[in-house]
Amino acid sequence: MTTDFCLLAATGEAARLPLEMFIVFGAAKLFGELFERLKQPGIVGEILAGILIGPSVLGWIAPGEFLNALAELGVMFLLFRVGLEVKASELAQVGGRATLVAVLGVIVPFFMGWGILLLWNAPQIEAIFVGAAMVATSVGITAQVLAAKGLMQTRAARIILAAAVVDDVLGLLVLAVVSGLARGQVRVADLVVTAVAAIGFTILVATWGTRAAETVVPRVRKKLRVAEAEFALSMTLLFGLALLAVYAGVAAIIGAFLAGMALSESVGERVHDLAHGVTELLVPFFLAGIGLHLSLGAFGSSETLILALVILAAAILSKFVGCGAAALRLGRADATRIGIGMIPRGEVGLVVAQIGMRLGVIAEHIYGVVVFMAVATTIIAPPLLAAAYKGALEQAEKKEVFRLG
Amino acid sequence: MTTDFCLLAATGEAARLPLEMFIVFGAAKLFGELFERLKQPGIVGEILAGILIGPSVLGWIAPGEFLNALAELGVMFLLFRVGLEVKASELAQVGGRATLVAVLGVIVPFFMGWGILLLWNAPQIEAIFVGAAMVATSVGITAQVLAAKGLMQTRAARIILAAAVVDDVLGLLVLAVVSGLARGQVRVADLVVTAVAAIGFTILVATWGTRAAETVVPRVRKKLRVAEAEFALSMTLLFGLALLAVYAGVAAIIGAFLAGMALSESVGERVHDLAHGVTELLVPFFLAGIGLHLSLGAFGSSETLILALVILAAAILSKFVGCGAAALRLGRADATRIGIGMIPRGEVGLVVAQIGMRLGVIAEHIYGVVVFMAVATTIIAPPLLAAAYKGALEQAEKKEVFRLG
Repeated sequence: MTTDFCLLAATGEAARLPLEMFIVFGAAKLFGELFERLKQPGIVGEILAGILIGPSVLGWIAPGEFLNALAELGVMFLLFRVGLEVKASELAQVGGRATLVAVLGVIVPFFMGWGILLLWNAPQIEAIFVGAAMVATSVGITAQVLAAKGLMQTRAARIILAAAVVDDVLGLLVLAVVSGLARGQVRVADLVVTAVAAIGFTILVATWGTRAAETVVPRVRKKLRVAEAEFALSMTLLFGLALLAVYAGVAAIIGAFLAGMALSESVGERVHDLAHGVTELLVPFFLAGIGLHLSLGAFGSSETLILALVILAAAILSKFVGCGAAALRLGRADATRIGIGMIPRGEVGLVVAQIGMRLGVIAEHIYGVVVFMAVATTIIAPPLLAAAYKGALEQAEKKEVFRLG
Repeated sequence: MTTDFCLLAATGEAARLPLEMFIVFGAAKLFGELFERLKQPGIVGEILAGILIGPSVLGWIAPGEFLNALAELGVMFLLFRVGLEVKASELAQVGGRATLVAVLGVIVPFFMGWGILLLWNAPQIEAIFVGAAMVATSVGITAQVLAAKGLMQTRAARIILAAAVVDDVLGLLVLAVVSGLARGQVRVADLVVTAVAAIGFTILVATWGTRAAETVVPRVRKKLRVAEAEFALSMTLLFGLALLAVYAGVAAIIGAFLAGMALSESVGERVHDLAHGVTELLVPFFLAGIGLHLSLGAFGSSETLILALVILAAAILSKFVGCGAAALRLGRADATRIGIGMIPRGEVGLVVAQIGMRLGVIAEHIYGVVVFMAVATTIIAPPLLAAAYKGALEQAEKKEVFRLG
């Protein structure tokens, strides 16, 4: 089993790890810095750095198993850190509103995507897959923007977070339905089991997690002799809940978020600092990783390019309108923030499109359109979000707020 | 290029990342805790955890590209953190003594390994390879023990570190010679180029790095707008020097160590804390990773088992005697510490054995013997080192010293 590892070192492949780390991290931070200087969100620069060094442009870096895993770890730590700043009780307060935001934010994009593809003369099943691929919000981008600006404690931020958790469960169900459709059968019993497992896990951890951690962590901490015991305990919980989340059918990052939330009232500043170090190292790999996966080669025809832009516009509008409408009672300012905060799409949409492609119901250029939509929404959302929060930012700076960045 | 990533998520492989993180990290910390309670070094527990969950015993985890990369990153961060606590001028002071320690620590193990294999009736070339595989010290284990106990500032610790840097350059030359031998030709010109590149890089960075960092870091830091700019800068230097080190022919961890040393007088406490978070997360993957690579299947015959034990004894004795003798003028206490601190072997020895196996000059069971020697020396050294430092520890606790753990 040592073979791979050691041959790497022996054959000059030893350079690969530091090379990938250096190029991805360095490029991301360089472009982040550039964008900050241009008064743009640094996060957009980091994603664009990924596009630049990736297969689409320079081709210096191709995403492989290791970089993908670092990206996944990065977004897990990001959500863990966000969870550390959120109390379960606060999320529960906005639960009803957040559920409405999530539900409308699933329905509107689905029907818009489906409708556009039908107008485009696509087959019924392909249209359904594209609609499904537009459903799930990827909360990492929004969380990073809000955390970096110290806005995690605002009402809109809490609703976005809670809605993202609900959205993830709904996205999972949509995924189960369309996979079933493509195979020609949707088993209701399977769907019910999926739904119960995902919802049950989330509610159970969210409601009992904090109390359990408050009881267990202080007691265990005193007894442990290993160095940085509280951090070791937190990491074990983080990976454990991420794992259980996947088994329950939701994304690993939901588990990471719930782990952070469970620990939010029981761990000390030291754990925050240490986890922050990991987050600072790994988040650039998550952001640049988004760009690395973009493939511009798919846009051979101008027709595909037009479709891509139409789908992108629909992806932005549908979440903005759907989620914004659901939050309208909170006032226009917060409705705008929530509508924008839910725009970014990510892995789940790509997974849907991927399954469709494997089953032969989504054409390759349509897959390219979905990838483009996912990457472009993550680039467009941060500046819009910054603009929507412009007034609130000055207020926030006076208060004592969480600063991730 | 998204294919791998997304199919993973779609096919239930999404659990793999959190599963591997949870099992490796959790098991390492659990055994670390157990060993601390038994008054043994936690580090030994973490290595044994790797053996337990690895292919040799339970088979829960097989080391793959991702876990190997995490382990490599872990030891890079470990050496970076160690470098942060060391001043280049302090290493230069002990340079002569350290070079002697390194040279005797290369010569004695080589001839002992070579002699034993010849007595065992092995072919000449196989004996040379085994001798070469016993040469290089793996300083990560010793650094972790010393740092965790706050002993990094002691004279013996500095000599061990400096000797490890020299040892790495010598190990590289031995590797170049035996690879050439196995292919039937040793080109002196190539060896000279290799030696000049490796020595030149190390000396250049060690002497100019600190001064350059002291000039550049404070100036750049003020101008950067990206969050945690000093940390981002440090990480870029870390990966950049690790990469250059590989290009220059030495190990990536030497570059990481030099990066830390260059920054030791210019970065603030914040960078220490953030890097410490990464180190705490990743070092268990380095330690458990050592155990994961052990394969007990190789010991089919009792003769091989005896050879393994003889080679292990020779590996321990030869470094202890060779390095200890070179340091005898510093008094028995420090000579003992240095002799023990140089005992652990690691990747470089495995690379030598691996090359030998690929070229068909080392039999598979002999490769198993080398792996066993490398793993066992890392397990044996920490308790011996703790014992050798017992008296000094009480003194050290009174002073203000570096605590990694």
